Amino acid sequence: LLKEELKEMRAADVAEAFDELDKKNSIILFRLLGKDEAAEIFSHLSTQQRMHIVDVMHENQLNEIIDELYFDDMIDFLEEMPANFVKKVLTSATEEERKLINQFLKYPENSAGSLMTIEYVDLKKEMTVKEALEHIKKTGPDKETIYTCYVLNEKRKLEGLVSLRKLVLFDDNLLISEVMNEDFIATKTLDDQEEIASIFKKYDLLTLPVVDKEDRLVGIITIDDIMDVIDQETTEDFQKMAAMEPSEEEYLHSRIFSLARRRIPWLFILMITAMFTEGIIGRFEDILTAVAVLAASIPMLMDTAGNAGSQSSTLIIRGMALGEIELEDYLKVFWREFRVSLVVGVSLGTINFFRMLFISQVGVAVAITVSITLVLTIIMAKVVGGTLPIAAKKMKLDPAIMAGPMITTIVDALALIVYFSIAIAIIGL
Amino acid sequence: LLKEELKEMRAADVAEAFDELDKKNSIILFRLLGKDEAAEIFSHLSTQQRMHIVDVMHENQLNEIIDELYFDDMIDFLEEMPANFVKKVLTSATEEERKLINQFLKYPENSAGSLMTIEYVDLKKEMTVKEALEHIKKTGPDKETIYTCYVLNEKRKLEGLVSLRKLVLFDDNLLISEVMNEDFIATKTLDDQEEIASIFKKYDLLTLPVVDKEDRLVGIITIDDIMDVIDQETTEDFQKMAAMEPSEEEYLHSRIFSLARRRIPWLFILMITAMFTEGIIGRFEDILTAVAVLAASIPMLMDTAGNAGSQSSTLIIRGMALGEIELEDYLKVFWREFRVSLVVGVSLGTINFFRMLFISQVGVAVAITVSITLVLTIIMAKVVGGTLPIAAKKMKLDPAIMAGPMITTIVDALALIVYFSIAIAIIGL
Ligand SMILES: [Mg+2]
Ligand SMILES: [Mg+2]
Ligand SMILES: [Mg+2]
Ligand SMILES: [Mg+2]
Ligand SMILES: [Mg+2]
Ligand SMILES: [Mg+2]
Ligand SMILES: [Mg+2]
Ligand SMILES: [Mg+2]
Ligand SMILES: [Mg+2]
Ligand SMILES: [Mg+2]
Ligand SMILES: [Mg+2]
Ligand SMILES: [Mg+2]
Ligand SMILES: [Mg+2]
Repeated sequence: LLKEELKEMRAADVAEAFDELDKKNSIILFRLLGKDEAAEIFSHLSTQQRMHIVDVMHENQLNEIIDELYFDDMIDFLEEMPANFVKKVLTSATEEERKLINQFLKYPENSAGSLMTIEYVDLKKEMTVKEALEHIKKTGPDKETIYTCYVLNEKRKLEGLVSLRKLVLFDDNLLISEVMNEDFIATKTLDDQEEIASIFKKYDLLTLPVVDKEDRLVGIITIDDIMDVIDQETTEDFQKMAAMEPSEEEYLHSRIFSLARRRIPWLFILMITAMFTEGIIGRFEDILTAVAVLAASIPMLMDTAGNAGSQSSTLIIRGMALGEIELEDYLKVFWREFRVSLVVGVSLGTINFFRMLFISQVGVAVAITVSITLVLTIIMAKVVGGTLPIAAKKMKLDPAIMAGPMITTIVDALALIVYFSIAIAIIGL
Repeated sequence: LLKEELKEMRAADVAEAFDELDKKNSIILFRLLGKDEAAEIFSHLSTQQRMHIVDVMHENQLNEIIDELYFDDMIDFLEEMPANFVKKVLTSATEEERKLINQFLKYPENSAGSLMTIEYVDLKKEMTVKEALEHIKKTGPDKETIYTCYVLNEKRKLEGLVSLRKLVLFDDNLLISEVMNEDFIATKTLDDQEEIASIFKKYDLLTLPVVDKEDRLVGIITIDDIMDVIDQETTEDFQKMAAMEPSEEEYLHSRIFSLARRRIPWLFILMITAMFTEGIIGRFEDILTAVAVLAASIPMLMDTAGNAGSQSSTLIIRGMALGEIELEDYLKVFWREFRVSLVVGVSLGTINFFRMLFISQVGVAVAITVSITLVLTIIMAKVVGGTLPIAAKKMKLDPAIMAGPMITTIVDALALIVYFSIAIAIIGL
């Protein structure tokens, strides 16, 4: 009965249900599955759950499941398993498989090679559309996709792409060489996954071929995996922008120490840097003691500057991630942020002046000092926040590190220096 | 010659090239295009560029292009045009088209209705696979996709889906009713695009049918548009998390005042809130005057607390956006953040204690005061930062507003109160 119900459910849902089960029950449930279903569900499970299953399943059963996996999912699985497990799998594989697995295991993480799979349909350019469709009927059932087919010569060099759309819509007697698209986009095995994702978005692709240096087809990348890449790359940006070491582990499945370890380094660096502000305040202690009321505005000034800078840096970092802002837009961004910050700074500065005068009822000199500082720091913050991410990219750093936390720390120091300098100029010592 | 070259280029690339041209040249270039290409490129252009083209093109030419657009792109275009332009288009449309356009224009932005298109293949369940393929051959050329076909009854109720994969791989004589998938996922016209995007990701879909209350098929959503939705929703999160009103305009194409207008409100609200800290410092002025060195550590304490809180809130907001963290995980998150913050807080607090003692050479009492405050504020910051986004969602607010800037402001006030209280307790007045 349960078995019937499992069959009706979608693989992604069954995999999700596994999350709610304890180790023992999930094994029992997994054993109820047929070979095909087991493989499909297996590719949706978390590393942890796969480990459990590997621990208790018989080698034969396991090999059956591994055989059913698409090649890219199988490589992903092997990558997360201990070396002696991989060894066992390799020994039970044929010579040819072994070579292929070893080759694929070597592609660096985040490269095209690590995303591609080998279950594609290959055609020859001498085939007619009809022959091609027959070939697909024969070889198609095991392929991850049949919607794009790859035309290869004897040396497996990629000569063109044909969509199943064309094969179905075009005349049966046309030659593949007549219908194929020779002006296709391909990527190399070592290309970065982030750039590949942009190509998918820009050209609305469903698949992308991956070729080696001799233009031979080595695999294809499918859009479902690209969707995961996009989420992964965005999460990486979020984490870097919040001053954390990025990680692909899910929050609720991470160990406490691993969460802490990814947070401490940047907090530490920023804390040390923030100590410059200690020095600055120390240096201006005289005016602070003389006009004690000045201290009260320090948090407001620093927070507003930090927030203003974060706004700018976030917009620029995101614009760069989407390819809307390039290195050569540096001066444009500078000039835009300068004008925007003038508008924002003068608005907030004016409001603040009247508020301090009438609500906080401080002296005019203090109100003027704080308000002018506010205007100037907002301008600095936005210009720094807008341009540092571009400068970072120029220096081959990830723009995402130039976000809120970093900008805040830099801008805080600037804000304090401006504040005390203006205070001395206006109020005097 | 140029015309030939244009033909060879991909639509997305031509559209990008338009960005570099001035108004006049882009019109000249656009006129060189054939009807089909013009429509495809048109759907890639920015609002601004479309406006230019609409301004100068003849009504007939324009109508030809509009006719060639896929329905969803046409609706998107009409949505951004002035009302009198839409009126003109509606007058030149047939009665039936007019009704459909009006219906589609009414779907709210970000709903399934606003994403779907009507160029899909419909089949009947009495057809054989062979008849279905012939039907596709006839009606397919104008469809946005033929890879998923929709089985409808006389009342246009959606009875099942058939992939072209099955039609090609399965036996020609089978009935559609035998091969179709009746256990499909469908969405309603008013469903939110963010949820639809998660469905695409979870089930690895290429298209999704949209049905009305009577389960009649009204349109289909394709994955290329979902890729854009994902970018759009992520950008919205980034902007909200950096305390800005979200906008879909590209940064470099926005007007200065529109950029400023989206930044001022939150900066203003946060500035006003930051004034609480003024009050707090004012209240503790005595101890600050007595032990002036305490002021020096305020920025470092506030920054570190803000950064620690931002780390937590960012992880949680992103986890919620990806569906990994749910409302019911509130206590789990609370407990995890508490433990992580203990590790992080004690590490940083210890380092800071020795640094202040040996490098800054302040008294033991001050070093202890600052370090204990640091530990406590990191704990508070992380617990507040981790749980507020979930609380926001519980209150039907967007979790993304509980990010860095908001958390910083809240945590600053808490940090100051803790700081001065501990200072009074340890150093006394
Ligand atoms: Mg991989
Ligand atoms: Mg696209
Ligand atoms: Mg795959
Ligand atoms: Mg996959
Ligand atoms: Mg990357
Ligand atoms: Mg990145
Ligand atoms: Mg701050
Ligand atoms: Mg729309
Ligand atoms: Mg997926
Ligand atoms: Mg579309
Ligand atoms: Mg589109
Ligand atoms: Mg939304
Ligand atoms: Mg959202």
